[in-house]
Amino acid sequence: MGSSIAREKVAQAVDILREKDIDVWMTFTRESDSSGEPCLELVLGSNVTWLSAFIVTKKGDTIAIVGDGDVQAVETIGSFKKVIGYTKSVVEPLRAVFEELTPRQIALNYSKDSFAGDGLSHGMYLLLLDIFAGTDFPSRFISADPIVFPLRGRKSPSELAAIRKAVAATEKILDEVGQFIQPGMTEKEIYDFVVGRMKHYGVKPSWDAAYCPGITAGPHSPVGHCFPTDVTVEQGHTVSIDFGLTVDEYSSDLQRTWYVLRDDEDEAPSRVKAAFGHMVEMLEACERTIKPGAMGYEVDAAVRSIITKYGYPEWKYAMGHELGRAAHDGSITLGPKWPRYGKSVEIPIQPGNVFAVESGIRLEDVGPFHFEQDVVVTADGMEYLSTPQKELFYVRRR
Amino acid sequence: MGSSIAREKVAQAVDILREKDIDVWMTFTRESDSSGEPCLELVLGSNVTWLSAFIVTKKGDTIAIVGDGDVQAVETIGSFKKVIGYTKSVVEPLRAVFEELTPRQIALNYSKDSFAGDGLSHGMYLLLLDIFAGTDFPSRFISADPIVFPLRGRKSPSELAAIRKAVAATEKILDEVGQFIQPGMTEKEIYDFVVGRMKHYGVKPSWDAAYCPGITAGPHSPVGHCFPTDVTVEQGHTVSIDFGLTVDEYSSDLQRTWYVLRDDEDEAPSRVKAAFGHMVEMLEACERTIKPGAMGYEVDAAVRSIITKYGYPEWKYAMGHELGRAAHDGSITLGPKWPRYGKSVEIPIQPGNVFAVESGIRLEDVGPFHFEQDVVVTADGMEYLSTPQKELFYVRRR
Repeated sequence: MGSSIAREKVAQAVDILREKDIDVWMTFTRESDSSGEPCLELVLGSNVTWLSAFIVTKKGDTIAIVGDGDVQAVETIGSFKKVIGYTKSVVEPLRAVFEELTPRQIALNYSKDSFAGDGLSHGMYLLLLDIFAGTDFPSRFISADPIVFPLRGRKSPSELAAIRKAVAATEKILDEVGQFIQPGMTEKEIYDFVVGRMKHYGVKPSWDAAYCPGITAGPHSPVGHCFPTDVTVEQGHTVSIDFGLTVDEYSSDLQRTWYVLRDDEDEAPSRVKAAFGHMVEMLEACERTIKPGAMGYEVDAAVRSIITKYGYPEWKYAMGHELGRAAHDGSITLGPKWPRYGKSVEIPIQPGNVFAVESGIRLEDVGPFHFEQDVVVTADGMEYLSTPQKELFYVRRR
Repeated sequence: MGSSIAREKVAQAVDILREKDIDVWMTFTRESDSSGEPCLELVLGSNVTWLSAFIVTKKGDTIAIVGDGDVQAVETIGSFKKVIGYTKSVVEPLRAVFEELTPRQIALNYSKDSFAGDGLSHGMYLLLLDIFAGTDFPSRFISADPIVFPLRGRKSPSELAAIRKAVAATEKILDEVGQFIQPGMTEKEIYDFVVGRMKHYGVKPSWDAAYCPGITAGPHSPVGHCFPTDVTVEQGHTVSIDFGLTVDEYSSDLQRTWYVLRDDEDEAPSRVKAAFGHMVEMLEACERTIKPGAMGYEVDAAVRSIITKYGYPEWKYAMGHELGRAAHDGSITLGPKWPRYGKSVEIPIQPGNVFAVESGIRLEDVGPFHFEQDVVVTADGMEYLSTPQKELFYVRRR
């Protein structure tokens, strides 16, 4: 699985180098298991121990320079055709490769705008300056943003298939949670139930296990990436769950909301139903605005304007983010032009991008309405990867 | 567990800032789940989504500046006493904190010498230059190596307890493997057995699952971080296993070697027993040389000289590395002065450091002899965390 995706992504990288007319892209890392290099996951799908360079050229060369001990693993994965091992120092083989390639540009994984293209540490950047001291290669270093953003964002068929599996597994557990919740339960009890179902199915959470699932019961529970509390599910309140799974290394990220009926209610009060209707309106705004060429801030504005129109308090988060190897993935945010989001809201959306689109409002005496759907961008719009929640779910006392 | 270690490590960081007379240490990160910031694991033991700063001062201030959505989680962990949340931009609160602290030095996590102190990405470094543009704070940036190396290396009591648990769990499975191996089995069968035992005990490997355990059967198997092959266990050959587990977020890293008796043998041939004896000699060299103040290259030389003395081919790897949150951890390598290891072999060993000490030789017609033990440095020497293999293990046909 991992190595077939790696081969797809390296082939895609060559195409993107041609499209952008950039000669060489290099991923340079060490101890990647601990230090984290989001691009290495894409092009190798495994880890390396010693100083290692993964080089892709516009001409289609794919060259890995790795410590001896990593050679066999990198050769077996097969995403890099030429694998050069070294024992004592990476410097000589690395300089030799660049002297042969004589690239006009050397794109490196640093980015002010997205963690996904920012796997080169500052210390490793300083090391590259040392390694190439006395040459003019450092003057050819550029940010790999133009390569990494589309490479990470344009999902290959295998990547999409993996995300669909993660979404299906998440929806199965969310359906079970809907049957499980009862008035009087604490957030912790619901959290424990979900953890038990993950164990049962042998699946793992998409983010920190301590708040995946994130459970928000009613208006008195803290909001955000929160640990479950002893707050209980109460009649007349909502319960929201933020939950995702990683399956075959790709992730889902979904939110669902239930209203807890009072004993004398058959349906939610009209005020609650109206709030839910506003959520559906926001979802429809996503459906209309997500398409190739649109900017994240435009999608955000369309959704956000509905919150304003109905007089809810300002929503403090972006209305969506890319999804893929992690629940928060890639370079595009469907968010407002706040400094916090940098340029990530001004990158044109492309076919093959996958987003988690989310929205939320609160009724101060009832609780949050949090919804999140996973979608893929098509040639002229979007398509759901998850089943959008277009009706309000109810919890009834049994 | 995680949060008690985080509180211990933040308190330790304040002590180290005093010892080194450095005013401020800042960990600056985003999307840490994917991007990797080895220091955040120590001081928070959890992840953050938005641009976040974790500041520790010599005076004992501990300040976290995080996106709103992460505030509750960071407050619950409790390792930072002051938690400042922001909605739109990290810039203003960050500048305000530094204008109040007016530190002489701002230590940042960049390091040419160790991934463990190199969690600041180059893009994030450039962002800091933007954030502090027009101030002279950038001129006060220094590498946090003097803080991070001892902080990561001096294990607290809770950290040591976790490593001991990981070692015990690993030895249990290695004992079971010793009972399981039989002539004719493939490396893949042994690998699958170990994976089954990990599932049974609910424990997870310390490095890439694809080669943890790493199985090397006889002289025809590739060496290093290798995937298991269809090479079979043969009489008259050795079998080596490289294996570690992560328990409570701390790791073990052990290697054991068995000799596969021929049907007419009761013990190994004298040549094999002699080779094993040389391994024990190497282990005794570690026992003599590992102590506070010694340098990694000195320990390596003492062990390596035994390989040379008996005329084996040069060993291509360091003779040991730090161990902790990862199987390869920290800043000190017990290795030769090769450029590949940088300054990591010239840092004085300190009490509380934990090492995996390893050594290996090969008999070309028999196979590898790979051994690895986990040890902790004491006030005047070292102590085993694992049970050192001082006798040759045998596999007999059943």
